[in-house]
Amino acid sequence: MASKTGVNATKTLKVIVIGCLAGGAAAACRVRRISEDAEIICIEKSAFPSFGSCGMPYVAGNTIEGGVDSLVVTSADTLINRFGVDLRLEQTVTAVDRASKTITVATKDGKTYTEAYDKLVMSTGTRPFIPPIKGLESGLPENVTGLLTPTDLASLIKLRDDGAKRCFVIGGGFIGVETAEQLAKLGLDVTICDMLPFVMNAVYDDDVAPALTKALEDTGVKTILGAVVESIEVSGGRAVSVTVKGRDAIPVDAVVMAAGNRPNSELATGMTLGPRGHIAVNEHMQTSDPDVYAVGDVVTVPHLVLGESWVPLAGPAQRQGRVAAGHIAGGLPDTYKGTMATSVIRVGAVVGASTGASERALRMAGWKQWCGYSPLSEATKDDDKAYSVVYTHNGTHVGYYPGSVPLHAKLIFHPTSGRILGAQIVSDDTAARRIDVIATAIKGGLTVEDLEETDLAYAPEFGSPKDAITMPGFVASGIMRGTQQGMPMTMLVKHLDELKAAGTVLDVRSAGELEACNLGEGVLNINVDELRGRLSDVPQDKPVFVFCRVGFRGYVAQRILEANGYEAYNGFGGMCSVQFTSY
Amino acid sequence: MASKTGVNATKTLKVIVIGCLAGGAAAACRVRRISEDAEIICIEKSAFPSFGSCGMPYVAGNTIEGGVDSLVVTSADTLINRFGVDLRLEQTVTAVDRASKTITVATKDGKTYTEAYDKLVMSTGTRPFIPPIKGLESGLPENVTGLLTPTDLASLIKLRDDGAKRCFVIGGGFIGVETAEQLAKLGLDVTICDMLPFVMNAVYDDDVAPALTKALEDTGVKTILGAVVESIEVSGGRAVSVTVKGRDAIPVDAVVMAAGNRPNSELATGMTLGPRGHIAVNEHMQTSDPDVYAVGDVVTVPHLVLGESWVPLAGPAQRQGRVAAGHIAGGLPDTYKGTMATSVIRVGAVVGASTGASERALRMAGWKQWCGYSPLSEATKDDDKAYSVVYTHNGTHVGYYPGSVPLHAKLIFHPTSGRILGAQIVSDDTAARRIDVIATAIKGGLTVEDLEETDLAYAPEFGSPKDAITMPGFVASGIMRGTQQGMPMTMLVKHLDELKAAGTVLDVRSAGELEACNLGEGVLNINVDELRGRLSDVPQDKPVFVFCRVGFRGYVAQRILEANGYEAYNGFGGMCSVQFTSY
Repeated sequence: MASKTGVNATKTLKVIVIGCLAGGAAAACRVRRISEDAEIICIEKSAFPSFGSCGMPYVAGNTIEGGVDSLVVTSADTLINRFGVDLRLEQTVTAVDRASKTITVATKDGKTYTEAYDKLVMSTGTRPFIPPIKGLESGLPENVTGLLTPTDLASLIKLRDDGAKRCFVIGGGFIGVETAEQLAKLGLDVTICDMLPFVMNAVYDDDVAPALTKALEDTGVKTILGAVVESIEVSGGRAVSVTVKGRDAIPVDAVVMAAGNRPNSELATGMTLGPRGHIAVNEHMQTSDPDVYAVGDVVTVPHLVLGESWVPLAGPAQRQGRVAAGHIAGGLPDTYKGTMATSVIRVGAVVGASTGASERALRMAGWKQWCGYSPLSEATKDDDKAYSVVYTHNGTHVGYYPGSVPLHAKLIFHPTSGRILGAQIVSDDTAARRIDVIATAIKGGLTVEDLEETDLAYAPEFGSPKDAITMPGFVASGIMRGTQQGMPMTMLVKHLDELKAAGTVLDVRSAGELEACNLGEGVLNINVDELRGRLSDVPQDKPVFVFCRVGFRGYVAQRILEANGYEAYNGFGGMCSVQFTSY
Repeated sequence: MASKTGVNATKTLKVIVIGCLAGGAAAACRVRRISEDAEIICIEKSAFPSFGSCGMPYVAGNTIEGGVDSLVVTSADTLINRFGVDLRLEQTVTAVDRASKTITVATKDGKTYTEAYDKLVMSTGTRPFIPPIKGLESGLPENVTGLLTPTDLASLIKLRDDGAKRCFVIGGGFIGVETAEQLAKLGLDVTICDMLPFVMNAVYDDDVAPALTKALEDTGVKTILGAVVESIEVSGGRAVSVTVKGRDAIPVDAVVMAAGNRPNSELATGMTLGPRGHIAVNEHMQTSDPDVYAVGDVVTVPHLVLGESWVPLAGPAQRQGRVAAGHIAGGLPDTYKGTMATSVIRVGAVVGASTGASERALRMAGWKQWCGYSPLSEATKDDDKAYSVVYTHNGTHVGYYPGSVPLHAKLIFHPTSGRILGAQIVSDDTAARRIDVIATAIKGGLTVEDLEETDLAYAPEFGSPKDAITMPGFVASGIMRGTQQGMPMTMLVKHLDELKAAGTVLDVRSAGELEACNLGEGVLNINVDELRGRLSDVPQDKPVFVFCRVGFRGYVAQRILEANGYEAYNGFGGMCSVQFTSY
C-alpha cells in the first residue's frame, strides 16, 4: 500500500501504530519526517483518522457545523500521500503477540489477519467508565451513549436530530459539562449529575468550582451534585427515566455517559501497568517491552508537579507521539519530560483555566498548607511539601477602559522557595491565555518572584501595568518575604469562630459594601481609610484578622496595624475568594 | 498636611516624589506600606494624580467616556487618606539643590517655596519631541498638541468638540497610531505621517509592521510613510495646513505631535545621564546621587535581551517605583532586574504584540543572522551574537472550530543555545496574551525547546494541541537540531535571483494556491503530495530551496528531498511571512 505513495520500497523499519488520533497520528507523521525508509502502518478502528475528539460536544451543539466529518484534522489522503502512511481504517487490533512481534487484526467484514512489526505504538485511548447503575447490567440502551468516539458522536447527533428534548448527562467533567452546555444552547432540557459537590471538581478546587457550577446553571442546565445515579429505567431497549439516589425518577430522551474513562490497555498483556490500569512507559514512551511504545490517554506520564499521573489531554498526547517517533526512528526530541496538565473550559459566559496541581491533588500527594498564623498552619514554612495559597481578583484590564471583568485567580506555591505549583482561573476568554503564563512558569521552574517581575503585554484594553495574572505573584512574593502576613480568606472564613475567640476579626471595607455581604456578628468594621484615626477601637493585646473585598485594603490595614505594634493577619483575596464570586 | 491623615507625626524619613503618575504613585504608596513613619510628599504638576496616560487616545476617541477625569486611577482622597501622602497638585519643581538636599517648588499662583528631603524620587517622565518643522519655531500653535499630559488630552478633546474634522498625526508610534485609529473611529479625516516606511516600525520589524500599517489603513486612516513633515502653515495662531516634503500642503483642523519623546531630565543637573539624556540609575533605581532615585520614562534600565535601554512603558515604571520605595524604606524587592519591554497595540481589527528584542534592535546591537544555507549566513551558528528567525502562521485555534484566524508570529532566538531573544505577533485579541508566554520565557531564560515542551491551554475554541505560540518553538528547535534546514522565507525572497542561480527554487503548494500568488518565472512547482513520484523532475546535483504557504509542507518536502540525497532548504514561514499577510 505504501508503495503507491512513492515511498522507497526497501524498508528498513516497520512501524505499526494502533489508533490514529492525536498521539498515534503525530507518531506516524513524525516517523515519516525522520525516516523516508520506514514502513508505517496505522490501524484505526473508526472510519475517521486524526479525529478531533475534543470538538465532539461542539458538533453535538451545532456550534461546529458539518457533523462527524468536520472533525477530521488531517485527511486520509494527506496521511497516505504526504506522509506515506499505510492507513487501515475500520480495522481493530484484537491481539498483540510480543514473542513473535505480530498483531492480529480484525477487518470490518469479519476477517482477521496478522501483521509483523519491528516497533509498535499503542495509542488506544480510553472508553467511558460505566458506573454500577441498575438497568445497565446488560449494556447500554440505544439512547445512552458515551462521547469518546466518532460512533458515539454519530449516536448523539441522531438522538438530537430524532427530537430528543430531555437529556441527562452523567458526569460533570470536561466532556459532561461541555456537552451539557452545548445541548442547553440548542434549547434542550438538560440535567447533569455528578457525585462531587460541584462540576469540574476533579480539576478545580472547592473554592473555584462553584463559579463554574453557577456558570453552567446560568446556561439553563439543571445540576444534581454530590449525588449518584442509582438506576435507569429501560423500556423497549431505550432509557425512559433516570433515578438519582433519594430522588424521583427523571424522564429522559437521551443519556450521555461521561462519568470518567478507563484506559484501553487490554492489548498490553504482560506489560507493566499503572495502579489504574494505564500502561506504564519510560521517558521515551517505551513500555516494559522496548519494542512497544504507548502514548496518549492510555498511559501514565510524569506530571511536572505531582509526579506520575494520568493526564488525558490532546496536547500531551501529541507531544508523546512525537517523542515515541523520535525514539523509534532516531530523531530528537526523543524524551518526554512531563506535562503541566494545562486545560481550559468554557461554561456559558465564563471560562475556567487550570495548570499544574490543584490543592486537592497536592493534599492527596501528602502536601500540607502553611500559613502565617501558626495555630492554623499544618506545616512549617520550609517543609519540602508545604504549600500556600493566594487569591487575587484584579480586573482583566484597567477599570477605566470599558469591559473589564474580574480575573479570579488561585495560585498555589511553595512558601520558602516560591516555586509555583499550580493555578486556577475563572474569568472571561482571556483566562485561556493567562493560564499559559503560569504553565510556562511551571515548565521553566520559575518562582512567584519571577512572576512579580515579568512584564506582560499592557494596553488599557488588554491588561494593567500589574497584570491580573502577575498580581498573585506580587502577593505570594510578599508572603515569601513575610510582608504579606496572613492566610487565605477561605481559611479565615472556615475558622471564623476560632479566630473571633483568639482575637479581633476586622472588616476594613466601607459601610456600603458590608450591606451587600458580611461575615455577621462579632466582626469589627473600620474603613481602612479611617483606620489610623480609630486605632483605639482595636484591642492591642490580641491578634487582628483583617479582611476586605479582594485583599488589597486588608494588606494596607495589616501594614498599618503592624507598624502600630499589632499582630495582624490579612485574609488573602478577601470576600471575593469565598467561592470565587464577585459580589 | 500628612498629620490630617493620622500618620504618626514623628517622622524618621522624609521622601519627596516628583511626578505622581505610574512610577511616582507606585513609589509613594509602597514607601507607606513599608513605613508608617515616613513623611511622603508628592508633587504633581497636573491636577490629576495617578493618571492613566495610556488611556488618553481612547478618551479622545470616546471609547472611554467621561473626559480627562476618567483616567484617574487612584484618587487624591485615597492617596491622602489610605496612604498618608502629602499630595501637592498643580505644583512644579523648578530646581533641585542636592548639596543642601532641598527642592524649589512653584505653586499655581506663582509663589515659590523650598522643601528639604532625605530621599528624592524623580518620576518626571517625558515631553513630546518637536521635530525641526518650519512654522513651529516659536512654539506650538493652539491647535497643535502632544498627547502626554492631562492638559494635552484636554486640548485634543476641545479641538474635537469644537468640530475639528481634518486631523494630522505626526509620528506612527504607539501614541500616534492609537490616536489616529481612535479619531478615525469618530469619523474624522485622519492622516498619519512617519519617517519610517511603516507605522510601529520602531517596535515591529519591516516584515511585521506592514500588517499593522495595512490594518490602520483599513480603519480609514491615510498614511504617508517614509516621509518627513517639512512645514506647518500657521495663521491666526492656528495651524491651517501641513506640508510633507515633496508633497502638496494638506489642510488641517488639528495636529497631534507624536514624533517621539524626550526625557524631562533637566532637574538632574550634575547627575549621570544616558546617551539620549535619560537619567542613569543602578539596580536600586538610585541615580549617581545615592539620595536621589529616578523611575519611569525618564531613566534608562536594563533590557533583558539588549542591555541598557530606554523602555517608556507603564508596567516597568510601576515596578521601578516599587523597587525605589523598597530601597528607600528598607523592604524587598529593592532591586530592578530589567524589563522584557512587552507591549501590545490594537490597530482596528488587528492586534500587534511584541516582547524582547526586535531583529532591527539586535542588528543595531551587533547581532548577526545565522541561517542553515551558509552562503547567506552572516555568522557562525555558535557565535555568541548569532540570531535566527522563524515565522509561523498557525490558527488562533483549531480550524474545525469557527472563528480561527492566523496568528502570525516571528520568533528570534540564538541558534545553538536556543535562548529566546524576542517575538512579534500580529493576530486577533489573543495576540496580547500569547506574547505573554514569550515574555515569561524570556524572564525565565527559557529556550525554544522549553517552548516546544510547554502545554498551553487547549480547547477547540481556544487553541490547538500544538498552540500557535508554541509552534515557533517546534520549528526553532528543529533548526537548533538541524532537522529544520533552511532560512526565513523573507531571506529566500530577498535573495531569490541568487538562489535561482545557485540551485532549484521549488514551490510545493497546489496549483490553485499558485494562482493567488507566486514568485514568478524560474520557480519549479511540484505539489508536496506528488513529490515522491516526481523526484526525477528535480535536479539532483544542486541545492533545492523549497517553500510553501506557511512552512510546514516545505519542511516535509525538505525531509523527503534530503532522504533522497538532495541538499534541501526550506523557507521558514512560507509565503505568509512576506509582510505577514494571509493571502
